[in-house]
Amino acid sequence: MSTEQWEDYLAANDARFVDELSDFLTYASISSLPEHTGAVADAAQWVADRLTQAGIENVSVLPTGGHPVVYGDWCHAPDKPTVLIYGHFDTQPVDPLALWTRPPFEPHIQDERIYARGASDDKGNMLIPILAVEALLETRRQLPLNIKFLFEGQEEIGSPQLPEVIDRERARLACDLVVSADGGQWAEGQPALHTSLRGLCALEIRLTGARSDLHSGSYGGAVLNPIQALCELLAELHDDRGRVTVEGFYDDVRPLDAHATERIRAVPFDADAFKAGIGVPALHGEADYTTYERLWTRPTLEINGIWGGFQGEGTKTVLPSLAHAKITCRLVADQDPERICRRVGDHLIAKAPAAVRIDVRPEASHAWPYQIAPDHPGNQAAAAVHRRIFGREPHIVGMGGSIPVCGIFLRTLDAYTVNFAFGLKDENVHAPDEFFRLSSFRLGQRAYVHLLDALSRSAF
Amino acid sequence: MSTEQWEDYLAANDARFVDELSDFLTYASISSLPEHTGAVADAAQWVADRLTQAGIENVSVLPTGGHPVVYGDWCHAPDKPTVLIYGHFDTQPVDPLALWTRPPFEPHIQDERIYARGASDDKGNMLIPILAVEALLETRRQLPLNIKFLFEGQEEIGSPQLPEVIDRERARLACDLVVSADGGQWAEGQPALHTSLRGLCALEIRLTGARSDLHSGSYGGAVLNPIQALCELLAELHDDRGRVTVEGFYDDVRPLDAHATERIRAVPFDADAFKAGIGVPALHGEADYTTYERLWTRPTLEINGIWGGFQGEGTKTVLPSLAHAKITCRLVADQDPERICRRVGDHLIAKAPAAVRIDVRPEASHAWPYQIAPDHPGNQAAAAVHRRIFGREPHIVGMGGSIPVCGIFLRTLDAYTVNFAFGLKDENVHAPDEFFRLSSFRLGQRAYVHLLDALSRSAF
Repeated sequence: MSTEQWEDYLAANDARFVDELSDFLTYASISSLPEHTGAVADAAQWVADRLTQAGIENVSVLPTGGHPVVYGDWCHAPDKPTVLIYGHFDTQPVDPLALWTRPPFEPHIQDERIYARGASDDKGNMLIPILAVEALLETRRQLPLNIKFLFEGQEEIGSPQLPEVIDRERARLACDLVVSADGGQWAEGQPALHTSLRGLCALEIRLTGARSDLHSGSYGGAVLNPIQALCELLAELHDDRGRVTVEGFYDDVRPLDAHATERIRAVPFDADAFKAGIGVPALHGEADYTTYERLWTRPTLEINGIWGGFQGEGTKTVLPSLAHAKITCRLVADQDPERICRRVGDHLIAKAPAAVRIDVRPEASHAWPYQIAPDHPGNQAAAAVHRRIFGREPHIVGMGGSIPVCGIFLRTLDAYTVNFAFGLKDENVHAPDEFFRLSSFRLGQRAYVHLLDALSRSAF
Repeated sequence: MSTEQWEDYLAANDARFVDELSDFLTYASISSLPEHTGAVADAAQWVADRLTQAGIENVSVLPTGGHPVVYGDWCHAPDKPTVLIYGHFDTQPVDPLALWTRPPFEPHIQDERIYARGASDDKGNMLIPILAVEALLETRRQLPLNIKFLFEGQEEIGSPQLPEVIDRERARLACDLVVSADGGQWAEGQPALHTSLRGLCALEIRLTGARSDLHSGSYGGAVLNPIQALCELLAELHDDRGRVTVEGFYDDVRPLDAHATERIRAVPFDADAFKAGIGVPALHGEADYTTYERLWTRPTLEINGIWGGFQGEGTKTVLPSLAHAKITCRLVADQDPERICRRVGDHLIAKAPAAVRIDVRPEASHAWPYQIAPDHPGNQAAAAVHRRIFGREPHIVGMGGSIPVCGIFLRTLDAYTVNFAFGLKDENVHAPDEFFRLSSFRLGQRAYVHLLDALSRSAF
């Protein structure tokens, strides 16, 4: 029952684990596309089977009214803490498909990287703790604390039914801490503690001019073009200092205190490397904030998509009837997603010109912003594992993205969430050619065993 | 050889003529889409065959390096004027296809209207003079003047190769007047003389931010969104009085004189009917101009299409790499299409923010604006036929659309163009469910016979 036994087990089963990850990645579990509903359900069943195979008990697929949730537990350590491990098996869409080197749901390995949609976000990462637990159960025949697993299939669409499921199952899900296997570390060899997540709200807008497309010669100049109206409306959503102009947008944003500013400034930032990494000619954002402050402490209003009129080859002299845009806002504590969504929608309706009709549709996707203290016991345990595995102090950082359940766990289960995952920034998450490093996959398995051991000694 | 003979001929052959139009409309001759090149060529051959069948001589399909041109003539009236009859057999694209009641190239007749893409613009109209000439040749065995036909397959893409063809064939095409069978009358029962056409120039722009799509959480707030940049750039193209802000845009616009203003104000305008006809909640345009002044005498800058990022169902939290727009300008005398295109492109490049890259691509489509005097002999002959056929004085109006060849004929053949066609405003030209009235198809045939008789007595 030495440490070496589980390490040997992980090493001996490495090829099988990689094959299993590859198999998991063949499921096209895109939660935002109705035609992929079956694939999301199949992925859920795959997860349930894999938990059972690992020795987890009480495995079940929980009904949600939407994409499913998979639960399982091992609760035979009565005097020890209980941790709930969270991840998701749904993925982002794959468009633009033409930019993928290989089909996104036909995983392939090259240079010790596994390429597929969902490889890093989040299938590779969510599989890690299952394998760590299997290694412990196969070698020690027990775990050092009580573990519950909760994997969802709707993270990428903002977890619409999950709050209800967590509320309904609050007794079964009760825990001292949530550990999220959705996220990543700072860089290869450099760990991080994540102390904040941004929230999210989403809406779609549609402007309608004439009842059908018009000839731009016969009507151009006498009728407002809905695309022009949309551009003018969207252009006014930011002022010339990069601030969102929607009234009250910043009302509930917590001001940055000196400690937080100091922690953020302690994280090294290389602007040239940042720009080169994504290929942008210049940085851009809200005046008077650094890049990390913009990403971790400031809300955004982003146009995720726009369309209207003719998009084909050549010229079509059309004055279109319709113009559409999709908008999401990233939120920071303590902005309320529904209130911000309503404020943005009301602003757009108020500003829309009389010569077009505007429809604003709030989308289901939303997430509360989240903050955890850097010295929370869960973070202390994670930092101890960081020092052991990476040999370095973690950076204390924020995350620009959203993991909706962190806010939900806090409000429903009264449990904070510690991020413990192994994605890295260059892995094309939400973009073509997503991949996950096999080195991270392996290191993560060992790190999880150490984390469970460390948490078994924590006081919550 | 009485008038009645040709009238009887037209009446006796009406069912066959409608069948022939229906057959002509089955060709999907969309000139802007490369995959329809074959259909445009097939339509050209159909036209050539139909001219020959009508008794026209020297029929040939002229090479252009692009979509073909069909020529034919009857030149056995040595002391009489020569008129060149112009039309086009290519069509606009059909998207959005979902809004068509029936497939656009499966013509069907309902309530004495023939529905298909190209029915009004311009296959129905261009077939009319062929049928009129056939009736004369079959009944009188001769025509009252010399006639040449020139039908092109590239009008809807701005006639890129036609100027070169007209220049090369200037001897063969020499004429005293061009009569355009592309256009329409004012309303059912109300004829019009068209004294101006707007020109056209086109460009496409693309903004690039990061080299691939980014996660809007990981990067949102720190990187300029190309859609936002595009909206801001396009929003600034009009000022708050509806004027285009591109420097020098209006430099070559002829000022409106008092006579022209008076003629325009003499044309009745019903704002409520205009709005209801197309279903817009309000009119919109350049301040201090009436609707007809905006349409006939003022240039425009129109966004024909815009696209970027995610357009599917649900939410995708993407910060896109690319944003695109298609722009056309309608021009008035004496704006130079190439110069305006360059000015707009240069303006956009100068205004684009440093945090994105901009590419501007001028499109081949362009057309010179055109003006003809209301009392030109060709217009006098047309007005005489209007009085006879409709029993009314024509309105003297402008046209907001573009017929590129009018400017080309004037500069190359030194011949003005008279519009003589029978489309009506509600026929969904360039839009779903395009149709042409069979009553116009029949009336047009008689009107053309009268026009040829009238022009045979004109002095040019």
